[in-house]
Amino acid sequence: MNAISVIDKKRLNEELSYDEIKFMFEGFLNGDIPEYQMSSLLMAIVLNGMSDKEIVALTDIFVKSGDILDLSSIEGIKVDKHSTGGIGDKTTLIVAPIVAALGVKVCKMSGRGLGYTGGTIDKLESIPGFNVSLEEEEIMRQVNEIGIALTSQTRNLAPLDKKVYALRDVTATVESIPLIASSIMCKKIASGADKILIDIKVGSGALIKTREDAEHLSELMVKIGDSYKREVRTLITDMNTPLGKAIGNSLEVIEAVSILKGHGIDSYLYEVCVELATHMVSMGLNKSLEEARNMVVECLESGKAYAKFEEFVKRQGGNVSSLRVSGNSKVIRSVKSGIIKNIDALKIGMLSAELGSSAQKQGDVINYAVGVVLHKTVGDIVHHGDALCTIYLGDSTDYFNPLDAFEIE
Amino acid sequence: MNAISVIDKKRLNEELSYDEIKFMFEGFLNGDIPEYQMSSLLMAIVLNGMSDKEIVALTDIFVKSGDILDLSSIEGIKVDKHSTGGIGDKTTLIVAPIVAALGVKVCKMSGRGLGYTGGTIDKLESIPGFNVSLEEEEIMRQVNEIGIALTSQTRNLAPLDKKVYALRDVTATVESIPLIASSIMCKKIASGADKILIDIKVGSGALIKTREDAEHLSELMVKIGDSYKREVRTLITDMNTPLGKAIGNSLEVIEAVSILKGHGIDSYLYEVCVELATHMVSMGLNKSLEEARNMVVECLESGKAYAKFEEFVKRQGGNVSSLRVSGNSKVIRSVKSGIIKNIDALKIGMLSAELGSSAQKQGDVINYAVGVVLHKTVGDIVHHGDALCTIYLGDSTDYFNPLDAFEIE
Repeated sequence: MNAISVIDKKRLNEELSYDEIKFMFEGFLNGDIPEYQMSSLLMAIVLNGMSDKEIVALTDIFVKSGDILDLSSIEGIKVDKHSTGGIGDKTTLIVAPIVAALGVKVCKMSGRGLGYTGGTIDKLESIPGFNVSLEEEEIMRQVNEIGIALTSQTRNLAPLDKKVYALRDVTATVESIPLIASSIMCKKIASGADKILIDIKVGSGALIKTREDAEHLSELMVKIGDSYKREVRTLITDMNTPLGKAIGNSLEVIEAVSILKGHGIDSYLYEVCVELATHMVSMGLNKSLEEARNMVVECLESGKAYAKFEEFVKRQGGNVSSLRVSGNSKVIRSVKSGIIKNIDALKIGMLSAELGSSAQKQGDVINYAVGVVLHKTVGDIVHHGDALCTIYLGDSTDYFNPLDAFEIE
Repeated sequence: MNAISVIDKKRLNEELSYDEIKFMFEGFLNGDIPEYQMSSLLMAIVLNGMSDKEIVALTDIFVKSGDILDLSSIEGIKVDKHSTGGIGDKTTLIVAPIVAALGVKVCKMSGRGLGYTGGTIDKLESIPGFNVSLEEEEIMRQVNEIGIALTSQTRNLAPLDKKVYALRDVTATVESIPLIASSIMCKKIASGADKILIDIKVGSGALIKTREDAEHLSELMVKIGDSYKREVRTLITDMNTPLGKAIGNSLEVIEAVSILKGHGIDSYLYEVCVELATHMVSMGLNKSLEEARNMVVECLESGKAYAKFEEFVKRQGGNVSSLRVSGNSKVIRSVKSGIIKNIDALKIGMLSAELGSSAQKQGDVINYAVGVVLHKTVGDIVHHGDALCTIYLGDSTDYFNPLDAFEIE
């Protein structure tokens, strides 16, 4: 077998065998296949696609490149939840306590954010004292005792995926549904959960831009799950506008707390969280969607969800009563009257990132106190001079004005 | 401008501007663009193609990356001839003396062969004493005095093309008609000839496999020529079977001498040489094809063509009367009777290369005395035990039997 003939095969749109995929990707991890051959293969994959068989093979090679977590010491059904990433997506902070309160075990190890989408770990670290780096033994004990632990990764999961992703990022080969499916699923499989719920974000502020692509991705993820006998469900949710009102770490925790306390029941964020929690409860406890939904709503209304949140934050050392928000704020006001047709998620996300709410490159220091809070949402009527959003600046007074993110007609 | 967005544009099949192509390719030459980004772009070009405008731009950037030859000190119309490469292609050795004898100036600087196709320079160097490395001044003087010089390149022509080609070779991005057109034409443009004839080889033993691709390539080359106001003509000739009977350096010179002496007039090799020479004479002396063809045939029959060959070989120090051919030969005989339907050019070419007739990688030492001579051609009747070919081995006695290159039914 040689690299050129394997790339050539993909160029000619022929199906690669498990061994050929393994030869190229494992070879890339151990340095036998140079970056220039991998990037040529990746572009051929992006443009010619992959068969289901190839996708399952690639995922398996990713999974086997690193550690595989064993969650068997945790009793009960472990349900994992993943979002493909979006602006203002704090759903894990809300959904995980809800389902844990209802008896579904949540042992979730997350990554940090990079670029304009924040990571759950960054949001949790904005809570003073919160410890995301627990020992594996302690994580298992905590999940057995209180049903939930949210931590950073303890193991080296799918290092090959990480190396491939870094190359895709600089070779314009990110936007490939099969590669996205493999990249997400390999980490979920290696994380060891019994059942997996994927929240596929679709819209201008997400990696996936169209409903069609989202459906294709959903189909592939379920197939990958099948090959490991893991139940995978997906929800396709909107990411044209930011999810919720707050973008930025502390600000998002504050908003999550508000939802957990039963506020904002008319909002899209509330609805998405209830939907996600409903599916996790349905999967974890074998309930119908209707039963599960009733349980979830009751859990929020009764205060049990927030109580579980408080319990787990305290258990991990955090103090939710002293969140830091920048005092250096600036209100952006509308310069015309009309109805808000759209709020551009990507622009708001990039503003928040620019203010310092997420790392632009590995190792950047994050400012947890900065971000954006929206005062209006799509469909609202605004008048000239109305506040559209508040920007929480860090030390800098320099920022780009997000006025053109609001489409008002 | 940044590399990722340019690659992305090509991935999305949008047209790149001159500046974008320049940014990527010049950046690659000077090291600003890494190999992994260039190979990703190349694969996107291979799969999505290039517009005529993009091809002309890329060629221009290749041309400007190195020296451009000035042939103005040579009087008369300079006509260059190029073959896209094939097995047993010794047409330059035959055609150049014919047209020089008729008054067309031939100042041709060739490259060496690599892989299974031999280079004209290697064939010439198989003539004892022949000097391919003349000073530029001497080349010009020689062409002015005797009408012909065949040498290796004196200048650094299109170094960017060379660097890109080396990367294409190891990333399965060779087979792209636009990239092939640019790669060939940039060197022809930089070589300074007034008019250019391209012999496009098509078939199993050539880079171009189908007539359709050959026609596409032809069209692109003429368009590139137009953009420099250089007349470009193309001929599409067969390369399913080897061209002529001899494959290997000295053996090919011997066959060329035989054609120059007016032998083999029923052969396809003779016909191709007459066709090529006819077009060069037609271009160089502004003759109709009929007039030109009569002149070419007369030139061969009268002995003027061979006289010119002898003159120029002697002028460059060569002695054609002492060609070295290996005494270690082996006759391959047919094991069945029937009609020869095909002789696989690629298999014969690879056998000859394996025997040592061309460099497999830069710097390999060539054995001029080895090769293959075919005793039968397509359409011939053979009987069990008839000689199909003779293999001229070097020191080694190890070779693969080319019997399955002969399709007999």
